[in-house]
Amino acid sequence: MSKTVPAVAPVAKSVEVPAAVRDAIAQLQMEYVHAIDNDELERWPQFFTEKCLYQIMPRADYDQKRLIGVWFCDNRGMLEDRVSSIREVNVYEPHVYRHVIGPTEILEMKDGVCRAQTSYLVVRTMHDGEMHVFSAGRYVDEIVMEGDTARFKKRMVVTDSWRYDTLVVIPI
Amino acid sequence: MSKTVPAVAPVAKSVEVPAAVRDAIAQLQMEYVHAIDNDELERWPQFFTEKCLYQIMPRADYDQKRLIGVWFCDNRGMLEDRVSSIREVNVYEPHVYRHVIGPTEILEMKDGVCRAQTSYLVVRTMHDGEMHVFSAGRYVDEIVMEGDTARFKKRMVVTDSWRYDTLVVIPI
Amino acid sequence: MSKTVPAVAPVAKSVEVPAAVRDAIAQLQMEYVHAIDNDELERWPQFFTEKCLYQIMPRADYDQKRLIGVWFCDNRGMLEDRVSSIREVNVYEPHVYRHVIGPTEILEMKDGVCRAQTSYLVVRTMHDGEMHVFSAGRYVDEIVMEGDTARFKKRMVVTDSWRYDTLVVIPI
Repeated sequence: MSKTVPAVAPVAKSVEVPAAVRDAIAQLQMEYVHAIDNDELERWPQFFTEKCLYQIMPRADYDQKRLIGVWFCDNRGMLEDRVSSIREVNVYEPHVYRHVIGPTEILEMKDGVCRAQTSYLVVRTMHDGEMHVFSAGRYVDEIVMEGDTARFKKRMVVTDSWRYDTLVVIPI
Repeated sequence: MSKTVPAVAPVAKSVEVPAAVRDAIAQLQMEYVHAIDNDELERWPQFFTEKCLYQIMPRADYDQKRLIGVWFCDNRGMLEDRVSSIREVNVYEPHVYRHVIGPTEILEMKDGVCRAQTSYLVVRTMHDGEMHVFSAGRYVDEIVMEGDTARFKKRMVVTDSWRYDTLVVIPI
Repeated sequence: MSKTVPAVAPVAKSVEVPAAVRDAIAQLQMEYVHAIDNDELERWPQFFTEKCLYQIMPRADYDQKRLIGVWFCDNRGMLEDRVSSIREVNVYEPHVYRHVIGPTEILEMKDGVCRAQTSYLVVRTMHDGEMHVFSAGRYVDEIVMEGDTARFKKRMVVTDSWRYDTLVVIPI
């Protein structure tokens, strides 16, 4: 954790992004969490481009560039398979998530790819009604426009904790 | 939980709403939670139309359309009575809420009524300083404009958990 | 808690603020929490004006105008010293924060100073992976523009709980 303190730490400049793109990104971030939380999982793969990357990994691994992660999907078909097995197999203890996300910070816009980060908290509610903080962290995303629609080319779910409940069944 | 997975799950299109209405709705959502959390409960009924519906109900009941709920108020006078009894009777163990809300998703705009949903988390802090996640869920709203002001014609508080602490005293 | 219930509780009017200022304030609120949560603490002092006020205090003290607080810094140098000691001494048990903030309510704009409030939740994740709600409350801010950049002239962190973990090491 010890670092050299820079003489002058810069305040980041807000990245120039057309208003329509900014709105589409905000819409994407919002629909993504609503679809998961409100049991519309079938919509989840559609938030990604056909060829894509979805990973969940602890922050320590992300910082050390050990980008393996707990989940790894690199195309939309894998995401759809995930949804099918959640719907069909359904052996896990039923539970639901509730995400609350903060505002999205756009870090860079380059060659039509927007890098962005968004903080999230997830509260999980179990079948017996018990609630607990299940995950806290941030999304580190690469987003592209396909027509009027913003989609994730890459979504890294970087979790603050390295501990995972036995199984992350539902995507974060 | 098992459902037929649709061949192509659609990505919802953002609903067309005038910017002024969108801003008024965002302002309403924000003031609503700030008024409750910052002990300005007297403002709470003013966020609703004269004839209105305010209900708190568990998600399972909402999904099954058993729309009875824990709280039921169908006009502003009932909301005002609630506030009066909180202020006057005051037998409960003192506590405060802190809501954090996500962005509001506008689902439909029809005949001047805007249907919208917003995720929320509430942390409750007790008199002894202890904090816990008290409620997680979403608001499902019908909002109308009265002049420049957006008001709830209907606010369903759909809680992820079916368990309620002995008494929900303060509105969510 | 017993108060006279006003006959008509007013709905606050949204304060007129130029869009560019509103955007700069939203950017400030967002970067502030991201810098703290993503271990870029060196940026933290730069969110404040040279002469400034940063305080953390429990809500009861704030309401009673006992404005002493747990932390007190009244210039940017003091904030930088805080960061240096966190980086250098580093005796505390390692942990990270994750803030989720709600929308910012602008309360007043007067003589170039913008008064605003923003609700927040902080989840703290310890080295062993355990997570808990660490703080809930609101920021009560005075913000000024320095060129294109919004900065805190004053940030009061008003915590709902009066209990603090042994030490608040990282700023909230």
